[in-house]
Amino acid sequence: MRLQLSTWPDIQHYLQHSTGILVPIGSTEQHGPNGLIGTDAICPEVVAHAVGERIGALVAPTLNIGMAQHHLGFPGSIAFRPTTLIAVIRDVVQSLARHGFRHVYFLNGHGGNVATANAAFAEIHSDNSFSGREDAMPALRFANWYMGQRVQVLSRELFADSEGSHATPSEISLTWHAYPDCARPMTLEPRLAPSSGFADAADYRRRFPDGRIGSDPSLASVDAGTRLFEASVADTLEDYQAFVRAD
Amino acid sequence: MRLQLSTWPDIQHYLQHSTGILVPIGSTEQHGPNGLIGTDAICPEVVAHAVGERIGALVAPTLNIGMAQHHLGFPGSIAFRPTTLIAVIRDVVQSLARHGFRHVYFLNGHGGNVATANAAFAEIHSDNSFSGREDAMPALRFANWYMGQRVQVLSRELFADSEGSHATPSEISLTWHAYPDCARPMTLEPRLAPSSGFADAADYRRRFPDGRIGSDPSLASVDAGTRLFEASVADTLEDYQAFVRAD
Amino acid sequence: MRLQLSTWPDIQHYLQHSTGILVPIGSTEQHGPNGLIGTDAICPEVVAHAVGERIGALVAPTLNIGMAQHHLGFPGSIAFRPTTLIAVIRDVVQSLARHGFRHVYFLNGHGGNVATANAAFAEIHSDNSFSGREDAMPALRFANWYMGQRVQVLSRELFADSEGSHATPSEISLTWHAYPDCARPMTLEPRLAPSSGFADAADYRRRFPDGRIGSDPSLASVDAGTRLFEASVADTLEDYQAFVRAD
Amino acid sequence: MRLQLSTWPDIQHYLQHSTGILVPIGSTEQHGPNGLIGTDAICPEVVAHAVGERIGALVAPTLNIGMAQHHLGFPGSIAFRPTTLIAVIRDVVQSLARHGFRHVYFLNGHGGNVATANAAFAEIHSDNSFSGREDAMPALRFANWYMGQRVQVLSRELFADSEGSHATPSEISLTWHAYPDCARPMTLEPRLAPSSGFADAADYRRRFPDGRIGSDPSLASVDAGTRLFEASVADTLEDYQAFVRAD
Amino acid sequence: MRLQLSTWPDIQHYLQHSTGILVPIGSTEQHGPNGLIGTDAICPEVVAHAVGERIGALVAPTLNIGMAQHHLGFPGSIAFRPTTLIAVIRDVVQSLARHGFRHVYFLNGHGGNVATANAAFAEIHSDNSFSGREDAMPALRFANWYMGQRVQVLSRELFADSEGSHATPSEISLTWHAYPDCARPMTLEPRLAPSSGFADAADYRRRFPDGRIGSDPSLASVDAGTRLFEASVADTLEDYQAFVRAD
Amino acid sequence: MRLQLSTWPDIQHYLQHSTGILVPIGSTEQHGPNGLIGTDAICPEVVAHAVGERIGALVAPTLNIGMAQHHLGFPGSIAFRPTTLIAVIRDVVQSLARHGFRHVYFLNGHGGNVATANAAFAEIHSDNSFSGREDAMPALRFANWYMGQRVQVLSRELFADSEGSHATPSEISLTWHAYPDCARPMTLEPRLAPSSGFADAADYRRRFPDGRIGSDPSLASVDAGTRLFEASVADTLEDYQAFVRAD
Repeated sequence: MRLQLSTWPDIQHYLQHSTGILVPIGSTEQHGPNGLIGTDAICPEVVAHAVGERIGALVAPTLNIGMAQHHLGFPGSIAFRPTTLIAVIRDVVQSLARHGFRHVYFLNGHGGNVATANAAFAEIHSDNSFSGREDAMPALRFANWYMGQRVQVLSRELFADSEGSHATPSEISLTWHAYPDCARPMTLEPRLAPSSGFADAADYRRRFPDGRIGSDPSLASVDAGTRLFEASVADTLEDYQAFVRAD
Repeated sequence: MRLQLSTWPDIQHYLQHSTGILVPIGSTEQHGPNGLIGTDAICPEVVAHAVGERIGALVAPTLNIGMAQHHLGFPGSIAFRPTTLIAVIRDVVQSLARHGFRHVYFLNGHGGNVATANAAFAEIHSDNSFSGREDAMPALRFANWYMGQRVQVLSRELFADSEGSHATPSEISLTWHAYPDCARPMTLEPRLAPSSGFADAADYRRRFPDGRIGSDPSLASVDAGTRLFEASVADTLEDYQAFVRAD
Repeated sequence: MRLQLSTWPDIQHYLQHSTGILVPIGSTEQHGPNGLIGTDAICPEVVAHAVGERIGALVAPTLNIGMAQHHLGFPGSIAFRPTTLIAVIRDVVQSLARHGFRHVYFLNGHGGNVATANAAFAEIHSDNSFSGREDAMPALRFANWYMGQRVQVLSRELFADSEGSHATPSEISLTWHAYPDCARPMTLEPRLAPSSGFADAADYRRRFPDGRIGSDPSLASVDAGTRLFEASVADTLEDYQAFVRAD
Repeated sequence: MRLQLSTWPDIQHYLQHSTGILVPIGSTEQHGPNGLIGTDAICPEVVAHAVGERIGALVAPTLNIGMAQHHLGFPGSIAFRPTTLIAVIRDVVQSLARHGFRHVYFLNGHGGNVATANAAFAEIHSDNSFSGREDAMPALRFANWYMGQRVQVLSRELFADSEGSHATPSEISLTWHAYPDCARPMTLEPRLAPSSGFADAADYRRRFPDGRIGSDPSLASVDAGTRLFEASVADTLEDYQAFVRAD
Repeated sequence: MRLQLSTWPDIQHYLQHSTGILVPIGSTEQHGPNGLIGTDAICPEVVAHAVGERIGALVAPTLNIGMAQHHLGFPGSIAFRPTTLIAVIRDVVQSLARHGFRHVYFLNGHGGNVATANAAFAEIHSDNSFSGREDAMPALRFANWYMGQRVQVLSRELFADSEGSHATPSEISLTWHAYPDCARPMTLEPRLAPSSGFADAADYRRRFPDGRIGSDPSLASVDAGTRLFEASVADTLEDYQAFVRAD
Repeated sequence: MRLQLSTWPDIQHYLQHSTGILVPIGSTEQHGPNGLIGTDAICPEVVAHAVGERIGALVAPTLNIGMAQHHLGFPGSIAFRPTTLIAVIRDVVQSLARHGFRHVYFLNGHGGNVATANAAFAEIHSDNSFSGREDAMPALRFANWYMGQRVQVLSRELFADSEGSHATPSEISLTWHAYPDCARPMTLEPRLAPSSGFADAADYRRRFPDGRIGSDPSLASVDAGTRLFEASVADTLEDYQAFVRAD
């Protein structure tokens, strides 16, 4: 059940039997020579939509832009400063809290969002914590689709040490499952991209000239994407249901 | 050409022959008893995607959330505070400026975004204006799909005084063109919703109990939506091309 | 009745029979070769003071600085960034709300303020809208003196297509009515200034070398100013009274 | 020479022989039972205008609102939060710096502004200090009209220990010199208001029930105001000239 | 009694008989050729710790960084922008308010903090003042160790006109009392440093080439430091006790 | 070598042979019934000071307050909102960058700081990344003393599954090594505290009534603290040296 394709009476009705919602959150950033710029938004979006369909859970529109300052050296990347993303997440959560949602589950596709989202949650909780008020706020969970147990096992089976950490064959496969026409198998040189830390956008581009970190996306395939999709839907469905049941 | 479905080398190549980009911007807010919550994001998105396909223009991912504090009294609405939306638009524009985009065309679906986007543009320009620097910034245009000339003529022909200003039969028709399965023809009572100004969310809900302002969306239809779609694509295509040619 | 020339017991007494206040808001910015830098503050100030005297309405001190980043290429212009003006308007409204004012009527003299003031109002309302609280906030109205019906008819009669949109003969006439010693009739070259959009201060100055947009202020006169003054007082008085009567 | 009553070519010409400007800054706040709410803005305004006339110095429009949160318990007071006033002063100074002003002299009428203005100046200087840049910024001075040597001597002579620190007979006399029709001689009970520190607006009102601190404004008179006016004009003129001469 | 060396049950117990706390606040900034960079933090820290021990008052950890943008031209200085320090002080006070502290006594070692701390207190009070709420907030006091009566008398006796205003022999003596191994007696040239106002860090360094203002720290000694320490402990102890007794 | 106990010429000299600095960062928050409120600041401070002494590395004053909103339900905890801590870290880093430090090594004692510090680093890098400038910024590292390899091995050996994640026997032992007089061996009930996620301060206190998470600090001892101290000094020394050597 997609929020964008619902009416407000639909949501009023939904809230009578569930107070949970999935919010896909990603990024718009380079993913190497053959990875889609929308990879990190597409992955959690397709998984969340599938979970929503299978169990009738509500899915918010995807937050397409994330904390990706380090990718701005590559054309097409669009980023939020951390303080902007904190405001974005705060406003989304407070909007949902207003309606009585009690469980907000962010399904994330971008590692660079994790720390800032964690800070955003703490900023949201600070209102109560500093004032001593106890305004009703929803439980918040920030889950990465690529960290689910089934996905981790499968990624390792499929790609082992070629997975890397940016522009991974797993995420690229999943986008090709979602948009098969966009699949662009390609041999890359070097096969495995370098790995290290990084600082700002210029530093990132110097260290990772084609944008990948530690990965070999030449291994990506639509078939792998389909398997990863099913694994992630199963992981997310299970985790979401446990989250909304708990209180 | 969709940014999310492109690679960074695609965008590097695109920038060699065009420095324009379309950015659909909408809102996630109630649209009356039978209008979709995603209406204001869906409308500019489908129009922008069609323009992008017809002339090879690049289209950014849709900014799905807007300045909609007044709709928060209805379940499902998600809003940004104006200062949040200013930060969002600033970061998007500065990201695009970094890559050499010289013409950023926001295609908007939500009247409530107009003032804040205008303020955001002035905030962006203030950096140069206060410092006396002349950092290269793209030309910015904020166009409303529903204000194009062809659309205006057609809306008037189709719906005359039943158009109103929120949850209009025009925008609802356009979403039904995009998602025919979501069409929910419905007779509403009163036929024409009331019209007036409003303040905060509680005030809005008191004045407009079912969410509509001045409109009769029972007139909406998929056929009207298809005609409005074509009108808006023609309006936008023409306006975007004039915008990127200028300068 | 001017707030600055009142004592607090005066205001306590005033609030027992009226909860309305006029707040003149303008800008400090170039107005072409012979227009006063204070034009946009002077115009709403003299009109508001006259309304205040005629019907005993309270008038706050004038907010002399506005959103005018685009004028900073001309010596003497002073501007607020949009986010600064949002904070200014928020603090003014919250101060007045604290005392029990229920109708705050901004009388504006600068087109550049409109969008940011609109965003400021939404920022103010967001406190209630996001929290679901219903703190008592005054009704807010932002009226432009130059948009009143009588003023529009008279401007058209007096100046027709020579009115333009910045440094207009109407506003310059009104300042000369207020400060006849400052009247500087002058022939300008070209007679009609160019018209177009603009971006930052440097862009503005390139497009409009003497500061005017689309106007011929050589037509300005004290006599025209006196007629415009009376028209605007009548427009504002009527609109203000309707505003404070409504609830 | 008043900025509001000048044209931009006037200011361009002025800057060729002087880079100094006076900026009156005050507050809109209760001043006891018979003091004007505009006292703190009126005092520096009339002094600055006189200085401007006598030596041809440029005077900016008055910043009418200040840091006066503690007065909000009395009807009619309007205040800026400190962070708002910091943004206001920053934007004013940066606007003037843009035009080549090298000496910005704030003439202040409100003790409550001093600390925040000092913080604002440090915030302005921080841009250079943290970055190591040396962008040209004007020299800044924040002078209180009531602290000039001649004024201090005269206040002591006129009112001795009845001066107090808020709603003082000196400042009230000066406003009556400026607006003789607003003079409201009045015997107050107790003659001398209490003195102490204070915290927020409610605390202030509990401590100082009629708004005064330590003062006996029943001693105010138009004649005293005229003498204080001349003393302050002499003090300010001398101090301003020393400021703009120094580098 | 030091907060850092206490457990939360200790503090729960403490609050049953006292609601006061001392918060040392300083700066990390150059103090001339032989003064310690930590001078402004060390001084209030050692005094506060002694007061805490003698009367069982609770002492918070030292806020080591202050508003010192003007010292950033000298290696080792670390500063907060004023708006950062306002947020820091606000969060500290709101944290303490949450637990029921009713008297928060900042013992300060850096003149540059005074204005910003004053602005921070007003920012804190603004929450109540603008809203009309009366949330319980602690009384706040910001005392400078070097302004106590005993300290002032002793400094004058010891150093007379050689005290100056930055890198003073008094504060340097006090740090040597605290850290005798760090004492570095040194003859300076010129003996007395110059005095004047200053703007940003580059301006400060041009005016005061070795960092001192108006002082002769060659007069500093451990013995003087020990006497100043006792004087300041006595001053602070007395002032703190009066503060927590008052209401 | 402690920054606070150095003079600016010392630092000028230091920078000629090293551009690295250690910045201890902690928190002021409850650590269970017998843990010190300063635990998270004391631990990295004593380790950093020892490293500084052994290899002549410069150590900044400790940042004593961190992101600890969730601990505010326990008396004595003092916290920064995430956005405040971002500003704090940004100002510290920019101050150090100004002087030519090229390697800033934060040694952290509080898990709750990690995400916000990560966001702060990205906020700092965003200035270059969005603008395309390449201002020289130091390399930044945020290391947790308790995550060093030697410390991890030793903690596991000493405490195994009784370590938990807040008020751990390891950190409490280390503070007792630093302040043996503060050691308070104590049997706790239940022996192992519960473990789970948490939201705001009230939620935290409900879940963890005595403040601990998953730990049994009754196992803490001064001896264990001494061994952990040496392990952490060795870990940190090695990691810091590798950091400053790298470029």
